[in-house]
Amino acid sequence: MASQGFWSLGGDNAGANNTGSQSPSTPRAWCQAAAQKLSGGIGSKLCGMLVHSGGSGGVWLALLNVGEVEKPAEPAAKQPPETEAAGTCGCNKSCNCTKAAVVFSDLYSTDLLPAMDSDAKTMTFLQEVVDILLAYIVESFDRDTKVIDFHYPNELLQMNNWELQGEPASLDDILISCRATLKYAIKTAHPRYFNQLSTGLDMVGLAADWLTSTANTNMFTYEVAPVFVLLEYVTLKKMREIIGWPDGRGDGIFSPGGAISNMYAMLLARFKMFPEVKEKGMSSVPRLVAFTSEHSHFSIKKGAAALGIGTESVICIKADESGKLIPGDLEKRILEAKQKGFVPFFVSATAGTTVYGAFDPLIAISDICKKYNIWMHVDGAWGGSLLMSRRHRWKLDGVERANSVTWNPHKMMSVPLQCSALLVREEGLMQNCNQMHACYLFQQDKHYDLSYDTGDKALQCGRHVDIFKLWLMWRAKGTIGFEAQIDKCLELSEYLYNKIKDREGYEMVFDGKPQHTNVCFWYLPPGIRHMEDKEERKKHLHKVAPVIKARMMEYGTTMVSYQPQGDKVNFFRMVISNPAATFQDIDFLIEEIERLGLDL
Amino acid sequence: MASQGFWSLGGDNAGANNTGSQSPSTPRAWCQAAAQKLSGGIGSKLCGMLVHSGGSGGVWLALLNVGEVEKPAEPAAKQPPETEAAGTCGCNKSCNCTKAAVVFSDLYSTDLLPAMDSDAKTMTFLQEVVDILLAYIVESFDRDTKVIDFHYPNELLQMNNWELQGEPASLDDILISCRATLKYAIKTAHPRYFNQLSTGLDMVGLAADWLTSTANTNMFTYEVAPVFVLLEYVTLKKMREIIGWPDGRGDGIFSPGGAISNMYAMLLARFKMFPEVKEKGMSSVPRLVAFTSEHSHFSIKKGAAALGIGTESVICIKADESGKLIPGDLEKRILEAKQKGFVPFFVSATAGTTVYGAFDPLIAISDICKKYNIWMHVDGAWGGSLLMSRRHRWKLDGVERANSVTWNPHKMMSVPLQCSALLVREEGLMQNCNQMHACYLFQQDKHYDLSYDTGDKALQCGRHVDIFKLWLMWRAKGTIGFEAQIDKCLELSEYLYNKIKDREGYEMVFDGKPQHTNVCFWYLPPGIRHMEDKEERKKHLHKVAPVIKARMMEYGTTMVSYQPQGDKVNFFRMVISNPAATFQDIDFLIEEIERLGLDL
Repeated sequence: MASQGFWSLGGDNAGANNTGSQSPSTPRAWCQAAAQKLSGGIGSKLCGMLVHSGGSGGVWLALLNVGEVEKPAEPAAKQPPETEAAGTCGCNKSCNCTKAAVVFSDLYSTDLLPAMDSDAKTMTFLQEVVDILLAYIVESFDRDTKVIDFHYPNELLQMNNWELQGEPASLDDILISCRATLKYAIKTAHPRYFNQLSTGLDMVGLAADWLTSTANTNMFTYEVAPVFVLLEYVTLKKMREIIGWPDGRGDGIFSPGGAISNMYAMLLARFKMFPEVKEKGMSSVPRLVAFTSEHSHFSIKKGAAALGIGTESVICIKADESGKLIPGDLEKRILEAKQKGFVPFFVSATAGTTVYGAFDPLIAISDICKKYNIWMHVDGAWGGSLLMSRRHRWKLDGVERANSVTWNPHKMMSVPLQCSALLVREEGLMQNCNQMHACYLFQQDKHYDLSYDTGDKALQCGRHVDIFKLWLMWRAKGTIGFEAQIDKCLELSEYLYNKIKDREGYEMVFDGKPQHTNVCFWYLPPGIRHMEDKEERKKHLHKVAPVIKARMMEYGTTMVSYQPQGDKVNFFRMVISNPAATFQDIDFLIEEIERLGLDL
Repeated sequence: MASQGFWSLGGDNAGANNTGSQSPSTPRAWCQAAAQKLSGGIGSKLCGMLVHSGGSGGVWLALLNVGEVEKPAEPAAKQPPETEAAGTCGCNKSCNCTKAAVVFSDLYSTDLLPAMDSDAKTMTFLQEVVDILLAYIVESFDRDTKVIDFHYPNELLQMNNWELQGEPASLDDILISCRATLKYAIKTAHPRYFNQLSTGLDMVGLAADWLTSTANTNMFTYEVAPVFVLLEYVTLKKMREIIGWPDGRGDGIFSPGGAISNMYAMLLARFKMFPEVKEKGMSSVPRLVAFTSEHSHFSIKKGAAALGIGTESVICIKADESGKLIPGDLEKRILEAKQKGFVPFFVSATAGTTVYGAFDPLIAISDICKKYNIWMHVDGAWGGSLLMSRRHRWKLDGVERANSVTWNPHKMMSVPLQCSALLVREEGLMQNCNQMHACYLFQQDKHYDLSYDTGDKALQCGRHVDIFKLWLMWRAKGTIGFEAQIDKCLELSEYLYNKIKDREGYEMVFDGKPQHTNVCFWYLPPGIRHMEDKEERKKHLHKVAPVIKARMMEYGTTMVSYQPQGDKVNFFRMVISNPAATFQDIDFLIEEIERLGLDL
């Protein structure tokens, strides 16, 4: 076997790079910590339960230190497989642990299902992986754990041998790889992880995703995904009802992310106006132009480039100081385009811009679209979820007038990645636009109702099952549960805004309360607060956020994004979509920025 | 709570639709069955282990009957949560089971992490889900289980209330939903599931996908997916080495399926020839034409429609009787197009066509592409994996001359869905073609090597982590393990071909041994074998495969695809990518076709 060195650092060096671990170092210590942390004796019960739950002694390794990359000490490793060893789990309380001691170093993937008589080995292996995952989950939510154990790419590349080999590795090696992967992964569930629009880890969503992986199927036909196809139908209808389309009528699809959803919308708009483009291409149509705010997501331009429309045909409309599209400028630019003989076909309004979290004025935009007969798309990838909140949905007033809406439940609703919906008002259009009638897949003489074979309306052929996690979470929370979760994130951002808006050393990037959870601000270290030369101050300030961010990652305490925008130098963009975050975490963030930026 | 009726059928009706279950009906019976089936006392140990592994009595429900939709009888349901009840698992052997009796009907998703003191409840809940999944996995590989418990869409829609509600459902309800979803799901791991190019369920791949869900991150930047980004880098390089590009140089990406990979290739080809198309769109370039075999995948036309090229600009090249593109016809059509003033920019050769499994002659095609300076793409979504086999890779000779290659490890390599790679020979082209420099994501003043922020070369913004399952499986099997798995599937298909080619009642759709695992054939029931009227016979034969397929699904015994092609009436397309299939399963398929088709 050529694979022993893979990921594993070998005996002596094993712990060398493991500087970030804050886990207890022995089984006993872990149990004590757990017992102290949990009330009502759950700690020791949990401890007992987990020891019962798994297979070999590796369970312990997983529980104790999910990131350890060395091999377990394996007291049982010399025993033959399939023997049973009773032991104690190391708790203060004695308990009856029955461990099925499977020696993973003697086993290979070929010993698992579908191999003969492999049920027990397979279950023990999968249970071992689950134990690693369960430990990682608990650790991820623990504020004493690092958000990330950061290493530079070259460091991480060189500190392990992860080339792929000709020969197989043992299952023990596979488990070690799993632990190591998680050790260096970012803990996206961590209550202080604020880096992206998608943060947090929902337990029901996670369970649903595990089930989805196990079902391992494909959305293209009813025959291979009967339940998932129906759940997609039910859920898209519900989402359209929430948008406000009569009886939830219309169409839609779950696509691989908001960028693709937006591209679908542009594709549909073009097809609606010029159906001949499907066969004849862009050379058969006049010069088309699309409009979107200068603050909109880059996927609008990316889509235009891909669809053969060209980025120069995406006209950027001015936004006001808070990031909202200015309707007057939209109308002006439409008229200009028409005067040039171009054909305006698509307006993408944004509900929740990426950086400022601004909501474009949808009613005014829809009036203009109606007037000039232009497809109105709402990119609500980030802000669409506010439709679930009675307190905040007014920000999307007018969305029901749109022709299409992008809405990513994997952002503000914390559905595991990926889960992005495109909703379309007109029925049948997607099918007509995209269908190719592949007769090997969409046979017309099947014995069931073919309207459930939804694959031909997609750009994809095979399509990942993204629906079950959303459906199951919705069932578990109810609409009111999503609403509460969203409202809480907005409360947290308001708390942050109120806390820093007049605080010494902070400047807001734009005035007024943010509409979404985006809070954009500069932190000015004491040394530059009173600089008189404005250009010099700006130059300094531009470097502050990147350095603080780099330090956050090196300490692993929290993560938040930053960027420049237009003529504004680097500022922090705090976003809150993480259901695990609390007021205290917001306090922590502020303290941490000040701690890490003090000397800059 | 308005949600009690959701999926659950209520007390008396609970089992009414549960006709397909073949599981033992009591815990004792299950243990006995398990003990009988497994040698060396593993049966009762497995039984004990699983009982230990979970939380409540629901474990039993899962083990006994993954599909049961009624609620568990819950002897412990009246006990307060968080009490501990010792019991026996119901085996013949007595054992010490310590069950953490959590009453899920009293718990909601808000009781799980990140709620206070929720670690134990969360673990118990997730463990309960895992127990359901483990039971489903074992059942899926069992030939005595149905491949599918089929119901018509309206039946399935009406037999349950699955509308989404305003109010939350209890965790008990969530577990019931999980069981019901799996009950009606297709068992894609089943050894007799042959319906798609993607079949089977790999245990290491599944474990990796569970880990991926738990890590819940995104491929766009190194900072949020350090390990996964590096593993993608390593794996793509390895795949390029296998293709035969010097030192594995080049570029690539994992995309959401083969159709999107093919679309990327077309996009790159266009950009390579006319980089101005990115900004100026198709109106700036001459009329472009693409070429592909009449047997190629529909995604080539779908891509052309989306990219604004138009389906009429995809010229279909004649294939020979076995489905291979005829190079002479390709050259002829290229010359015709050039005479019309069109610009040939893209040839998509297919390595493993969808229906026949044919491999286009890549060397001859590459000579033509070179002569006329046309981008050569190889759509190896289905056949690319044969590159892993020393015995079969000659079928792709010439692939190293391609400019781009689609290769879907989720097909012939049984990586869980989805996992599709596009490999590109020229470095930097993807980045130039697709980048939009979003400054909120791809900040240029980050503290690490930005070449690992790969997101801007994608069409997507967020991108699902598809790499880990492939990498971990590769590690577990080694290249030789994949090779063995692929060679075995090809052996099985040769066995099937040899078995039916001269068998009474069978006709092959094309002569000669198939090159891939596709075996295309008609089954002629006795009643039509000697029909003299050829048209009448053809008309009858066209209806045979759909009826047999419908019966297969209703009995749930196996599943195989069928379709017409050109002037050929409906025939079976058997494909083998399922690592669980054996020679006996091939025998079974033939017997089953004959049993179900006898009276037609």
